Amino acid sequence: MNSDNKTWSGRFSEPVSELVKRYTASVTFDCRMAEVDIQGSLAHAAMLNKVGVLSAEDLAAIQRGMAEILDDIRNGSFEWSIDLEDVHMNIERRLTEKVGDAGKRLHTGRSRNDQVATDIRLYLRGAIDVILGLVRELQASLLQLAEKHAETVMPGFTHLQVAQPITFGHHMLAYVEMLGRDAERLADARKRVNRLPLGAAALAGTTYPIDRHLTAELLGFDGVCENSLDAVSDRDFAIEFTAASALAMTHLSRLSEELVLWMSPRFGFIDIADRFCTGSSIMPQKKNPDVPELVRGKTGRVNGALISLLTLMKSQPLAYNKDNQEDKEPLFDTVDTLTDTLRIYADMMRGVTVKPDAMARAVRQGFATATDLADYLVKKGLPFRDAHEIVARAVRYAEEEKKDLAELQLVELATFSPLIEADVLPVLTPQGSLASRDHVGGTAPRQVKLQIARWKEKLGI
Amino acid sequence: MNSDNKTWSGRFSEPVSELVKRYTASVTFDCRMAEVDIQGSLAHAAMLNKVGVLSAEDLAAIQRGMAEILDDIRNGSFEWSIDLEDVHMNIERRLTEKVGDAGKRLHTGRSRNDQVATDIRLYLRGAIDVILGLVRELQASLLQLAEKHAETVMPGFTHLQVAQPITFGHHMLAYVEMLGRDAERLADARKRVNRLPLGAAALAGTTYPIDRHLTAELLGFDGVCENSLDAVSDRDFAIEFTAASALAMTHLSRLSEELVLWMSPRFGFIDIADRFCTGSSIMPQKKNPDVPELVRGKTGRVNGALISLLTLMKSQPLAYNKDNQEDKEPLFDTVDTLTDTLRIYADMMRGVTVKPDAMARAVRQGFATATDLADYLVKKGLPFRDAHEIVARAVRYAEEEKKDLAELQLVELATFSPLIEADVLPVLTPQGSLASRDHVGGTAPRQVKLQIARWKEKLGI
Amino acid sequence: MNSDNKTWSGRFSEPVSELVKRYTASVTFDCRMAEVDIQGSLAHAAMLNKVGVLSAEDLAAIQRGMAEILDDIRNGSFEWSIDLEDVHMNIERRLTEKVGDAGKRLHTGRSRNDQVATDIRLYLRGAIDVILGLVRELQASLLQLAEKHAETVMPGFTHLQVAQPITFGHHMLAYVEMLGRDAERLADARKRVNRLPLGAAALAGTTYPIDRHLTAELLGFDGVCENSLDAVSDRDFAIEFTAASALAMTHLSRLSEELVLWMSPRFGFIDIADRFCTGSSIMPQKKNPDVPELVRGKTGRVNGALISLLTLMKSQPLAYNKDNQEDKEPLFDTVDTLTDTLRIYADMMRGVTVKPDAMARAVRQGFATATDLADYLVKKGLPFRDAHEIVARAVRYAEEEKKDLAELQLVELATFSPLIEADVLPVLTPQGSLASRDHVGGTAPRQVKLQIARWKEKLGI
Amino acid sequence: MNSDNKTWSGRFSEPVSELVKRYTASVTFDCRMAEVDIQGSLAHAAMLNKVGVLSAEDLAAIQRGMAEILDDIRNGSFEWSIDLEDVHMNIERRLTEKVGDAGKRLHTGRSRNDQVATDIRLYLRGAIDVILGLVRELQASLLQLAEKHAETVMPGFTHLQVAQPITFGHHMLAYVEMLGRDAERLADARKRVNRLPLGAAALAGTTYPIDRHLTAELLGFDGVCENSLDAVSDRDFAIEFTAASALAMTHLSRLSEELVLWMSPRFGFIDIADRFCTGSSIMPQKKNPDVPELVRGKTGRVNGALISLLTLMKSQPLAYNKDNQEDKEPLFDTVDTLTDTLRIYADMMRGVTVKPDAMARAVRQGFATATDLADYLVKKGLPFRDAHEIVARAVRYAEEEKKDLAELQLVELATFSPLIEADVLPVLTPQGSLASRDHVGGTAPRQVKLQIARWKEKLGI
Repeated sequence: MNSDNKTWSGRFSEPVSELVKRYTASVTFDCRMAEVDIQGSLAHAAMLNKVGVLSAEDLAAIQRGMAEILDDIRNGSFEWSIDLEDVHMNIERRLTEKVGDAGKRLHTGRSRNDQVATDIRLYLRGAIDVILGLVRELQASLLQLAEKHAETVMPGFTHLQVAQPITFGHHMLAYVEMLGRDAERLADARKRVNRLPLGAAALAGTTYPIDRHLTAELLGFDGVCENSLDAVSDRDFAIEFTAASALAMTHLSRLSEELVLWMSPRFGFIDIADRFCTGSSIMPQKKNPDVPELVRGKTGRVNGALISLLTLMKSQPLAYNKDNQEDKEPLFDTVDTLTDTLRIYADMMRGVTVKPDAMARAVRQGFATATDLADYLVKKGLPFRDAHEIVARAVRYAEEEKKDLAELQLVELATFSPLIEADVLPVLTPQGSLASRDHVGGTAPRQVKLQIARWKEKLGI
Repeated sequence: MNSDNKTWSGRFSEPVSELVKRYTASVTFDCRMAEVDIQGSLAHAAMLNKVGVLSAEDLAAIQRGMAEILDDIRNGSFEWSIDLEDVHMNIERRLTEKVGDAGKRLHTGRSRNDQVATDIRLYLRGAIDVILGLVRELQASLLQLAEKHAETVMPGFTHLQVAQPITFGHHMLAYVEMLGRDAERLADARKRVNRLPLGAAALAGTTYPIDRHLTAELLGFDGVCENSLDAVSDRDFAIEFTAASALAMTHLSRLSEELVLWMSPRFGFIDIADRFCTGSSIMPQKKNPDVPELVRGKTGRVNGALISLLTLMKSQPLAYNKDNQEDKEPLFDTVDTLTDTLRIYADMMRGVTVKPDAMARAVRQGFATATDLADYLVKKGLPFRDAHEIVARAVRYAEEEKKDLAELQLVELATFSPLIEADVLPVLTPQGSLASRDHVGGTAPRQVKLQIARWKEKLGI
Repeated sequence: MNSDNKTWSGRFSEPVSELVKRYTASVTFDCRMAEVDIQGSLAHAAMLNKVGVLSAEDLAAIQRGMAEILDDIRNGSFEWSIDLEDVHMNIERRLTEKVGDAGKRLHTGRSRNDQVATDIRLYLRGAIDVILGLVRELQASLLQLAEKHAETVMPGFTHLQVAQPITFGHHMLAYVEMLGRDAERLADARKRVNRLPLGAAALAGTTYPIDRHLTAELLGFDGVCENSLDAVSDRDFAIEFTAASALAMTHLSRLSEELVLWMSPRFGFIDIADRFCTGSSIMPQKKNPDVPELVRGKTGRVNGALISLLTLMKSQPLAYNKDNQEDKEPLFDTVDTLTDTLRIYADMMRGVTVKPDAMARAVRQGFATATDLADYLVKKGLPFRDAHEIVARAVRYAEEEKKDLAELQLVELATFSPLIEADVLPVLTPQGSLASRDHVGGTAPRQVKLQIARWKEKLGI
Repeated sequence: MNSDNKTWSGRFSEPVSELVKRYTASVTFDCRMAEVDIQGSLAHAAMLNKVGVLSAEDLAAIQRGMAEILDDIRNGSFEWSIDLEDVHMNIERRLTEKVGDAGKRLHTGRSRNDQVATDIRLYLRGAIDVILGLVRELQASLLQLAEKHAETVMPGFTHLQVAQPITFGHHMLAYVEMLGRDAERLADARKRVNRLPLGAAALAGTTYPIDRHLTAELLGFDGVCENSLDAVSDRDFAIEFTAASALAMTHLSRLSEELVLWMSPRFGFIDIADRFCTGSSIMPQKKNPDVPELVRGKTGRVNGALISLLTLMKSQPLAYNKDNQEDKEPLFDTVDTLTDTLRIYADMMRGVTVKPDAMARAVRQGFATATDLADYLVKKGLPFRDAHEIVARAVRYAEEEKKDLAELQLVELATFSPLIEADVLPVLTPQGSLASRDHVGGTAPRQVKLQIARWKEKLGI
């Protein structure tokens, strides 16, 4: 067969145009699935042999040929041809060159439609496992910081206005929780990834007496896709994974925003090690937190991939359409983006230096303990809404005086309510405020440490 | 307190402008959470009482007042005020009018930040449960159709070209599978929805000795949010739910596309009952499949909501920011869209009339059994790739003769390969083709019936 | 005609189900186009009369009936019926009730397909004109602030690190530029909105001798849609407008982010008047910049609408499909969001108080004049890259000494390069730095004032 | 200087980590801007010389060095180094190696912030010009088809139900119109692309006496960005271009959907030349319209890029942040996708064979002339709504009789209205229907030909 001809040429009166060949070829990006393609083919061949469709000799030939091809791919000597369109045809053609008719028999009882669906799932299952490990690693990084700063006081913000004192450890734990949900979501998605489409053939199944459960077992799948039309047209797993990734990146975009803020001289709460920063080509003094900024920007990348995939599948009639070829690049890009970002983040968080003095200074600007004062009044019998109003007036007064609440004299405070007495003073300190939020999920250092212990046990670290 | 004043007015020197009041008010849409807001408040009050922060009298007063308010809301006599900004302040103010200081004590130990997060979760949990029921109902509708047409032959398409014969029942089952995954995803999301944020207060927890596990139990939550900062700033559940809904709508957009195609006179495979169709203001003959078209269009709505929510959360620093108020409208719209669409779809599928004759005619145009011929040759010893090539030539010949493969004479067929003999004839019929795809997930009527039985057992119908 | 019957009932054997009626009805949202619908109908009737298809009596009856209907709509007494599906049928039915057969003749030579396309364009043209006025108003607000602070020094940031001194006026002008491009884009979109689809009828034109140019003239359109299929299926204008709005909202999200930062006590650069802020239900001290935060969040809303519309149109075959009904809600929501946001922003910017002292303090933290020092060395003959390296070392030294560059002694500075002499001192002041950036677009106060003058002339203020 | 050191190393205590280097480097994709980067540098140098900042010798050295570098890049011998991060530093470093201190002086008065903004605009301006040419080429292809089939009758569909007869030429012209708007939008965007940011330096302008208008003139820009902060932070042009591209791809997704439908055996309206189709690895009979399917799928790609860019810019504070580096890949991918798609489409449309017989048969199924019958009755004096109702009943009768309207006997027709007489017969033919829609934009062959002539003149073909 002439190398210019496509596989299906017997039915065609003219070869595919060069422009079309380039436009429709996928081998430039789907070659990343080469190893799982071979893995899937070997399991398929073993199953065909087991059910009596493929001879032992053919199977042996295929195994031998594939081992050689795998070597070639790994050492970079395999030559991918755009004329052969995709990873599947490239490998099958090479196999046939190596082992003859046995290679031509490999495609018995399958189609590229179910083959590619199997490959992507194998690839994605592996990617999810790597990512789950990286999520855990980043959580470990954050827990380390949290542990070191379980008592380090900083202002908690809402609306970027000072709200109440919290600890830096407590703040880090919020991200440990978010990443925990990300891991749950990825593990849930993995269940739906790990089902075998092979055996659906083009769309309707095959006339050979295949044993799909055997193939599933050989490849480590939890089960089989129970409907052949669905098996070849389903790309849910790609969308679900990308949606979970978009959320994970959204969490990291939030942490990035905070790192950028905290490293700004206006905050000065942290420093990021030089090896994670870059300078300016024109401004000699600059040290810029490039990594978190880039992470923030890359969130868009994954949101975009999600929309690409949803747009792609919208209103597609069953079963397989060529549109689906467009599933791979957004998926691969999402895997790469999330993997690289988690890896660099786990490393970078270990390069964060916390500046407790700056945090402590900041907690004294913004009346962080006003709620504590209101709670103090409630405990002395005032309804909460009335206490809130009294403290609001005290704050307005303090602001005009350019003082923090803790800097007001007791006599000044007492003018706002006769209930305010000397025992108010510890209430108005950040430490007093922190310690009093001592319930599950609260910012009291005791609670923060309990949470750290819980997570360490959960993650096995 | 003057109705023009906002709750926090003691600290403010001028009232909020009218324009701002309208721009920032949420009561026009968050009033839909009124019942769950009351439910949450009652649990909070009961817990406060249990831990000794709220007296039995206050609790009784709150319970009495809330019962009246609930009645007012249900009978439509509750007057929502935009001056009171949101559902929470509207209800609390009314409660205080009814029961005095007890009402002012209700907000002890909580903030609107954790209150609203609790409300949305309660609301969404209820919505998911309704949706899961509707998914099951639509699956039941599809199974009914599938059962009736487990043997009805139709052309299976790939690339909208005739591929292989399938049964209509098999085709319907593909959608049963998709909806099955939708239900799994929603159930997975529900686990993460059903955690209690209340007790996080503004962001750091509260100084009162609250018992969050008790509140969680009273409200039927599976657990508590373990970090207060995360509790008030997390909107993952809304995004995860909306992503799962976008996938569900994408599935329905695919079925819609097919219904529209099948009802076109060019296909004529089905008819949709008149009550689901509309006509034209100008063209008297028209009967249009408006419902599936609208469903197809509404997919965009949910994709849009997903992007709204992801954009909203991108790069938000902790903890709560007003941006988050924008979470509700996309979420509510998604719930409504998915709920209405599933409900109408379950009904509409029962109004679908299948036209087996048209399907049977169509299966004879497009060489649907060409793969069967190739498989026939393989079973006679030819490698698959060679068989493929021989059949490709036979198809080209048949096309020039304007005949289907089954219409060729045996002598004509035999010119393409000496292996083709009289036993080829049943292979080339749609029924022969169908019956031979007899493995898990295949289109053979026997397999289709097994799948229907499996699903009926799973759904308990 | 029975109210249960739809217009097209003669062809239908059963009425539309209640569920379908609600699902497919658009009158709940398209009634906002009532006035332009009447405007379009009147022009259509006048044209029909001019070309001899409608009698003068019928025209007069229609004009009289429509005048009454318009009154009813404006005074709120018009009753919209969901049974009549949309704004068009509601008005036409009422007209027929009022004026009899003349009402039934109004729809001659048109279809709802071209009617609704005409209505949306009329509506959107009006909305764009309002928005263009509001953009100009916000630009005027910003120019006023810029003028007041043309010389107020603040730190210019890149990467949220201090970069170089700029003036607050210069910063405001950046947003004037962005809004200027928004106005250009909206004006460009308006050209494509302002073309008449009426006359396309259902999809192919009409058999009546209509004069589309006359109708266009009566309605103030710049031209007609030149292809009838395109006329009824085109929703480009909605997408183009929404894309332009998404960019405008993105600009406002950036300004919002800055206002939130600047109002944080960590920056303290500005204050926003109390009437644009809200407090907290639990924290008495809070004064939160709710409006900019909400604007930031609403950006997601418009991005979502854009995706809704793009998803909606993807892969729709010609000509009209019911999917298109989904164009209106995202479009209306975008118009409302942008209109309200611009209006409140123009107002809010007039309530911004700038705090020059805090800005001046901040400019002294972060080595803002390091580039000036490098430029100084270049002017003394050093290649830029070498000067950059020398200043980098000086900055590192100053940082270790905890001083700003301007606080170093001349002798200290001179250790880094013998070229540094006494004339360096003015170079290292913010004022010196500012004044030296004196070219088109630079931050020198002289340039800022020239830009303000240019814009005032351009906007005619 | 050691190749491991970054440009800004004097201020840094440790080198950038390898992981960070790879994560933040852009040279792998921004090297595509190498030629425009050099073009920009040469104009900058010429301007510096003109204003007296750069000596004639230095300018000559830079010009000589750049000429060599350009040669190296064009012949593929330029070695890009990831250590040098981006295209700008790679080229500048090489220049300095070649010409010494002159190379170090090139960066005087500019920063990478304004340099990269200039490069992207130069690149995008060129891309738009190429795309405008390709749009015109595709329009020419469509006009050719339209001209050949200006009288070829086919069924016009709404809701994929037969609506009215149209001509295939008329249908093609709808896409010529859409592409015409795409070209307008791109030309509008080009105006905003073609403004010079160079001179903004890092963010505030520069202390050198630069002449930005001269640089603009040398580079063919229409004007300069009037605010330096805006100049370095603006990415509007990328978003506006991508939005316009998303619309263009949406149009092509619609044409693709139609080509796929029309090529399905259920329609059989067209054939696409073999060279644009591919086959199946399993089904020997298949000839699949891969190109239009892939185009349909690639729409998602551009929608995704648009969301990436909008997400990227959301809430970014001024001026430059590293997030912006993420602007390039979505933009490049959009340019490539649109360029390749237009090119292949122009070619493919010339390979479309129309099958008038199949179209003619289809027009007789679906009562395509029902509106004509209603219009006939109106012209005989009936109000339109009454005529509509009468024809609806006639259609229902014909449907039950399994006949088209034109196949009914006059006596049968007359039972529905006494106004129906012998002159109705030509009205009910497709040709009669077509010819009667003879106004601007109508489907009458005479109008179609006028439109073709108008477009040919407009495009100069």
